[in-house]
Amino acid sequence: MSSHLQTAITPLHAPTMSFTNLALISQCDGFPYADSDPSAYLARVNTYYQLRVAGHDYPLGYMLPSVAEVFRGTPAWELDDDERVLTLTAGDDADSRSAAVETSLLALRATGHFQVLNKWRGELYAVYGRDKELLFRVERSASPLFGVVTYGVHLSAYTRDAETGAIKIWTPRRAKTKQTYGGMLDNAVAGGIAAGESPFESLVRECAEEASLDEALVRERATAVGTVTYWYVRDERAGGETGLLQPEVQYVYDLELPADVVPKPGDDEVEEFYLWSVEEVQEAMAKGEFKPNCAVVVLDFLVRHGILTEANERDFIEIVSRLHRRLEFPTL
Amino acid sequence: MSSHLQTAITPLHAPTMSFTNLALISQCDGFPYADSDPSAYLARVNTYYQLRVAGHDYPLGYMLPSVAEVFRGTPAWELDDDERVLTLTAGDDADSRSAAVETSLLALRATGHFQVLNKWRGELYAVYGRDKELLFRVERSASPLFGVVTYGVHLSAYTRDAETGAIKIWTPRRAKTKQTYGGMLDNAVAGGIAAGESPFESLVRECAEEASLDEALVRERATAVGTVTYWYVRDERAGGETGLLQPEVQYVYDLELPADVVPKPGDDEVEEFYLWSVEEVQEAMAKGEFKPNCAVVVLDFLVRHGILTEANERDFIEIVSRLHRRLEFPTL
Repeated sequence: MSSHLQTAITPLHAPTMSFTNLALISQCDGFPYADSDPSAYLARVNTYYQLRVAGHDYPLGYMLPSVAEVFRGTPAWELDDDERVLTLTAGDDADSRSAAVETSLLALRATGHFQVLNKWRGELYAVYGRDKELLFRVERSASPLFGVVTYGVHLSAYTRDAETGAIKIWTPRRAKTKQTYGGMLDNAVAGGIAAGESPFESLVRECAEEASLDEALVRERATAVGTVTYWYVRDERAGGETGLLQPEVQYVYDLELPADVVPKPGDDEVEEFYLWSVEEVQEAMAKGEFKPNCAVVVLDFLVRHGILTEANERDFIEIVSRLHRRLEFPTL
Repeated sequence: MSSHLQTAITPLHAPTMSFTNLALISQCDGFPYADSDPSAYLARVNTYYQLRVAGHDYPLGYMLPSVAEVFRGTPAWELDDDERVLTLTAGDDADSRSAAVETSLLALRATGHFQVLNKWRGELYAVYGRDKELLFRVERSASPLFGVVTYGVHLSAYTRDAETGAIKIWTPRRAKTKQTYGGMLDNAVAGGIAAGESPFESLVRECAEEASLDEALVRERATAVGTVTYWYVRDERAGGETGLLQPEVQYVYDLELPADVVPKPGDDEVEEFYLWSVEEVQEAMAKGEFKPNCAVVVLDFLVRHGILTEANERDFIEIVSRLHRRLEFPTL
């Protein structure tokens, strides 16, 4: 649980907080739904700036006005306050646009404009257009400044009791030293997809790095089971500026492990793996111990396996829909 | 495939039409997404009438103006043209409201106002408020007039080859004599949920009626796997007035059948059951042979079982989201 949430809500003798499953989803999928709600619709149109690429007259993401403002008058960018659009004008293909974006971001990093750029990763994320063409690549830590869609893989690894069929879920705790969501619970394996990498190859790589899982086993047994999609509004736990918008697509995989296969931390990102019953996982979720988007992946797992149903979850219909938010930007 | 679609698109020597999976979803989930699209948003606000219940100031469905108009000046209803709202004013609990709705509908049926009422079923559907309270019940055939959310169950029954693990899907063809979608392909079992019935009990009943499946087998093996939700715009194939809006929630179940269990038509709704490979099912889907909402349930099945993936489906992300549309009305 984040310290700022605790501070805000529980004064002295903190009782155990309890999050409903719908509240867990709202933590991850926090951007309001416009649909037929005029106030939410107008707030959206009047508050944010759209990011566009010249010659492509549709939004690729929403940016905070305070962020868009920083690009005013800088080379390669054009800011239209009437239309509330920031347009990348430099470049005419993915490589030249990517170079222009990198130049701008390196300058902003040098001047210390944005806290998120202090966590420069040296990893590139891909931004796509309506024809699923690559428009440009952007440094991973900068993607929330632009509000563009990012892509990742999440794996649920589980075992099934030979007699009862009861499911147990492998649940890692993130290292306390990790900059983001330190000490929180995670999915067995998760990671971002770099530009040019396929989801499945990304998964295989992360399975080795994060959980020491054998490549052949993963290739044979990991099953693609869909996506979860949501629109995250960054809070303190993510580090850096808050309020940045982060629409995300997570390709979701299930991996039923034999009883004798035990995931082990393969790098310093994970502290320990627990093999927990569904009840133990649900208790930890209700206490807010999971990283928000990992709780969402667990909920999707519980729905698909008939554990979370309309019979035991009051908000079942709303939850299943919000696990799969339709993002209004082009996606791969 | 509907005759009107064929007529519209293929003149004389009809080549085999081919629908993409995204096109199949759009046939079922046809109501536009407002989100950030001003034209779609304004069309929605300026075109339809909202259905409301007195004391509950939020929409329960969208109605065509031509339908709302018919309620002008009738007892129990109030039509506000400025706000574009039709309000049920009679009754102060579910029973009294339901009685008022029935009285109005019986009068409209007697005067032959709406074609959809010619298929009066004598089955009641439930309409819920924001606190998930029952607001009123409405005759099934009338629900598309009001545009309210309806609920059903759909079951995918399949077998798995003992050696290869290959999935085959039990696929019934609807009787050609059926008033709606006659001769089209369906899911193994499907049906609407009557007011007061639980999804699972509805499923068990339909499994016996439509597929002669043993109750004990269904109770033991059928697994809840989530929902599909969509916003259907009725066309000629549904019968009656076109353009009526029908937001639907389908509770989805999987049932892996032993090789020796063969579904058999239990009533006159199904002509024949086929046991088809995934490829055969996909071919029939591409030819438009499936009832639209059944194609959607098949797509959800293929996604959850790792058959339809980002590696073989260009529109994968969009498809998974649209299988789970968030409906903007209260749901159970």
